[in-house]
Amino acid sequence: MNVDGSLKEYFEHALSSLMKNYETESSLSDAMRYALESGGKRIRPLLLLSILKALDSVSLDRGLRTAMALEFIHTYSLIHDDLPAMDDDAVRRGRASSHVKFGEALAILSGDALLTEAFGLIADDPKLPATVRLDLIADLSRASGAFGMVEGQALDIEGENRALTLNQLQDIHSRKTGALFLFAGRAAGMIANADSKVRENLEVFAQFFGLAFQIHNDLKNRLQIGQEDQARFQSDIEHHKATYPAILGLEAAVDELYQVLDSAQASLNQLKQSSQDPRSLDQISVWIDQLRIKL
Amino acid sequence: MNVDGSLKEYFEHALSSLMKNYETESSLSDAMRYALESGGKRIRPLLLLSILKALDSVSLDRGLRTAMALEFIHTYSLIHDDLPAMDDDAVRRGRASSHVKFGEALAILSGDALLTEAFGLIADDPKLPATVRLDLIADLSRASGAFGMVEGQALDIEGENRALTLNQLQDIHSRKTGALFLFAGRAAGMIANADSKVRENLEVFAQFFGLAFQIHNDLKNRLQIGQEDQARFQSDIEHHKATYPAILGLEAAVDELYQVLDSAQASLNQLKQSSQDPRSLDQISVWIDQLRIKL
Repeated sequence: MNVDGSLKEYFEHALSSLMKNYETESSLSDAMRYALESGGKRIRPLLLLSILKALDSVSLDRGLRTAMALEFIHTYSLIHDDLPAMDDDAVRRGRASSHVKFGEALAILSGDALLTEAFGLIADDPKLPATVRLDLIADLSRASGAFGMVEGQALDIEGENRALTLNQLQDIHSRKTGALFLFAGRAAGMIANADSKVRENLEVFAQFFGLAFQIHNDLKNRLQIGQEDQARFQSDIEHHKATYPAILGLEAAVDELYQVLDSAQASLNQLKQSSQDPRSLDQISVWIDQLRIKL
Repeated sequence: MNVDGSLKEYFEHALSSLMKNYETESSLSDAMRYALESGGKRIRPLLLLSILKALDSVSLDRGLRTAMALEFIHTYSLIHDDLPAMDDDAVRRGRASSHVKFGEALAILSGDALLTEAFGLIADDPKLPATVRLDLIADLSRASGAFGMVEGQALDIEGENRALTLNQLQDIHSRKTGALFLFAGRAAGMIANADSKVRENLEVFAQFFGLAFQIHNDLKNRLQIGQEDQARFQSDIEHHKATYPAILGLEAAVDELYQVLDSAQASLNQLKQSSQDPRSLDQISVWIDQLRIKL
């Protein structure tokens, strides 16, 4: 999945400037940086920034800290998910997982630190009004907490070795993956101070996009594209994890993916009509097309 | 260590009311509750509430959510510290540790959830002005994050099997334990909107009290009071952990403890002079006396 080069560069630059402030006496900051700088696509923060740019092209910097906080949360979740007690993945994006590189204790702690610092980043954001910062923190806590991402992971673990229905699978995915995508859309609306119609639109779009992202991932793993994904797919099989293709079959899963992507594109088109700078959303259309897997 | 019965009851009641809202589909909320309701003394939240009551006796409820958030953070840190990859403690307060009771994956996740929800609790607090909430969140993130509690734990782990100087030990303790005590004092000042002189006083007191608490713990473990503590002491010895008695010797460590407690009491006395309800601080004097270990 390719991303808007300039926006990504903008984000990467801000992130590495920020990380220069994290220089701990222990190896903690090395472990935080290692996980953050592992060549991820930055889809969640770039989704936030692209939408914010479309809604309010002049105040992109108001979204930077929230975008970084979102990436902190996503990154901590990957570190903890990879742990031996969880998915037990030794490789992440072609490199050693954090616990393989730094040991389990430091991996756990670096995840804890990223999670903790994420909220501090937003609380201290000098570019946002106090009430917006509070709304963002409350929303990010909900999206990633005991009824959001962490619960999705808990349900996923408890669902292992059990047959899940499609509804159960969708519930897990909407918490585990969807919640942070939804936050990206909602946060852009909060920061741009968008009206309620636009915010509603953003939520619909973000939910479809997050769902498509997940079905695409399930399918991609199933089709064994890339060596690392193959390893992960093997690990999912060993853990008897339910996936869209496993429940629906390959072709029906692809049909479902296309329907969800069409819905995402339709709500994106609506969003364009209320945008100051609709061209900023073109990148998202490109992503949508890139998610259209062909059998 | 005994605590003010009525204030503790007030806190416990609020905490169990809050926890009724946490009813997840997975076992996540069971694991969160198990760790929270493990019979801890609630020193940190009660320190916050006692000081707040002294400074502003009519608005104790304004400190409740922050006190609960603080206990969430403390509890998550215990769950993660007990993990096999960290201190590997199978027993906590006479019961099975979270990972023994619920498995490692759910223990990690329940810690993550408590940490995440802590910030949401404060962000959503209807009893505090927006700016106070933001100051509390920023401060709690700093106290518990990459330069606070998590860094203390990272330094502690990296210090294992190495001889530490007294300065290094103090640095670890001030981060690992002291930072949350300091937060308790600072938070009371923020919530009561205390003047800068009182706030300074609070910080001095909280730092001495936190330090005394840690030296006391080291000594208590060394003197092997109680079976559970004995097990923990054994575990510390096996991990070659540096402690006050190990570095200073028993008698000098007790002398140090008494000096720090005297300093804590002196700053508490100063605080009494600026209190609306100085008798609320009497409980803290009782705690100080209870920390005076006799050889």
